[in-house]
Amino acid sequence: MKKIAVVLAGCGVFDGAEIHEAVMTLYAIQKNHASFEIFAPDMDQMHVINHLTGQVMPEKRNVLIEAARIARKNIRPLDQLNPDQFDAIILPGGFGVAKNLCSFATGGASMTVLPLLERILRDFHKQNKPIGALCISPVILAKLFPGAKVTIGKDPGTIKHVETMGARHQITSHGEVALDEENLIFSTPCYMLDANIVQIAEGAEHIVQAMLKKM
Amino acid sequence: MKKIAVVLAGCGVFDGAEIHEAVMTLYAIQKNHASFEIFAPDMDQMHVINHLTGQVMPEKRNVLIEAARIARKNIRPLDQLNPDQFDAIILPGGFGVAKNLCSFATGGASMTVLPLLERILRDFHKQNKPIGALCISPVILAKLFPGAKVTIGKDPGTIKHVETMGARHQITSHGEVALDEENLIFSTPCYMLDANIVQIAEGAEHIVQAMLKKM
Repeated sequence: MKKIAVVLAGCGVFDGAEIHEAVMTLYAIQKNHASFEIFAPDMDQMHVINHLTGQVMPEKRNVLIEAARIARKNIRPLDQLNPDQFDAIILPGGFGVAKNLCSFATGGASMTVLPLLERILRDFHKQNKPIGALCISPVILAKLFPGAKVTIGKDPGTIKHVETMGARHQITSHGEVALDEENLIFSTPCYMLDANIVQIAEGAEHIVQAMLKKM
Repeated sequence: MKKIAVVLAGCGVFDGAEIHEAVMTLYAIQKNHASFEIFAPDMDQMHVINHLTGQVMPEKRNVLIEAARIARKNIRPLDQLNPDQFDAIILPGGFGVAKNLCSFATGGASMTVLPLLERILRDFHKQNKPIGALCISPVILAKLFPGAKVTIGKDPGTIKHVETMGARHQITSHGEVALDEENLIFSTPCYMLDANIVQIAEGAEHIVQAMLKKM
C-alpha cells in the first residue's frame, strides 16, 4: 500500500489549513487504497483570525496543536517526517500555507519557505517521489523548483507572482490537475477558485489519483 | 432544492464538532443536490482541549467563532435558525455536542439540552421535518423525544444512558442508519465506532440520502 505524507498548516482557512481541502485529501487517499500520515510544524501560527469577522484575535496558537484537530490527534511534528518512509507528499491549501509554511502572504514573490519544509520537499524531489499541492500551496513549489509547471487557478495577481519566481503557470478550472512530468509536481486550484465543496472533493481525488499513477 | 440546516458544536473532535463528520455532512448534502446553511450557538465552549495531548488548555473559545472555521465564515448564530425556512436539520457529532449543545459529557442520562437548540428541534419535530444526528448527537434526541429509536453504535455504556432516557436503541455498524419512521429521526454511528474517514463519508451520505427521501 502506497503511503503519502500530508502536511497541514494549522486548522482553518484564514490562518491555517483549509479544512475542506485537508479532509478531502485524507478521504481521497484512503478511498484510493493508499494510506496517510499527517504532519505539521511545531511552531506558533503567524496569527489567529476570527473566522466569523476576519479580524485578528489577540491570541497565540500552535500550528501542530491546531492541525491535530483535523488529524484527530494522529499527527506528528514535521521534523519527524522522513521522506525515505513515504511514496509521496501532499500539501492541502489555506492561508496558513502562505503564512506559516512560507511567507507568501507578506512577501509575495520574495517569499521564503520554512527551512524544515524546504529540506523535506527537496528530498522528495531528489528521490523522484510525487509532490502534490492544492490551492495556494503550489507557490512553495514555484519557489523551490525553478521552471516547475504549477497551477493556482486563474487569479492574475497570484499567477504573476508564480511566474516571477520562475515557474510556468497553467490556467486550470475546477477539479483539473496541472502535471509537471519532469519534476513529478502535481497541483490543483481548489478554493483558489470560487468553488463549492463537491468541486473540492473532485480536485482532491483527481490530484491523488494522478499522483498514485506515478508512484 | 431541499434545504438542510446543519448545527455545529465548535471545531475539533474533543471540544467541538468532529471535523470529518461535519465536512462529510456538508459534502453529502451538496452531492445529493440539496443545499445547506450552517449554524452554531454564540457562547463559550465548555473548555478548550489540546488535540495533541488531550489536556485542557487555559483558554476560552467561542463555539460560533470556532465553528466558522469549518464553515469558512458562512455561518449564522443558532438563534437565527428559523425551522420554517428549512426542510430538515442535521447534527454532526464530536464531544462538543456532549459538552456545548447538551450536558451529556458531565451529566449522562441526567443531561439537559441547550434550551435554544431544544426549542428548534421540537419545532422541526412538530412540523414533521426530518432530524438527523451523527455519532454522539442522538443522545439529544433520546432526551427530547421519549420512545424515539436512535443509534449510537455499539458502546454498552452509552446505550445504557440512551435507554435510561427512554429511547429505543438500535445497534448499528459502519455506515448504517437507524430510522424512526414515526418521529422522522435518523441517526448513524460514525466515530462512535472505531471508524476510518471513508466509513465516515459513507455514514454521512447514507443518513443524508435517507433524510432526503422523507422530505
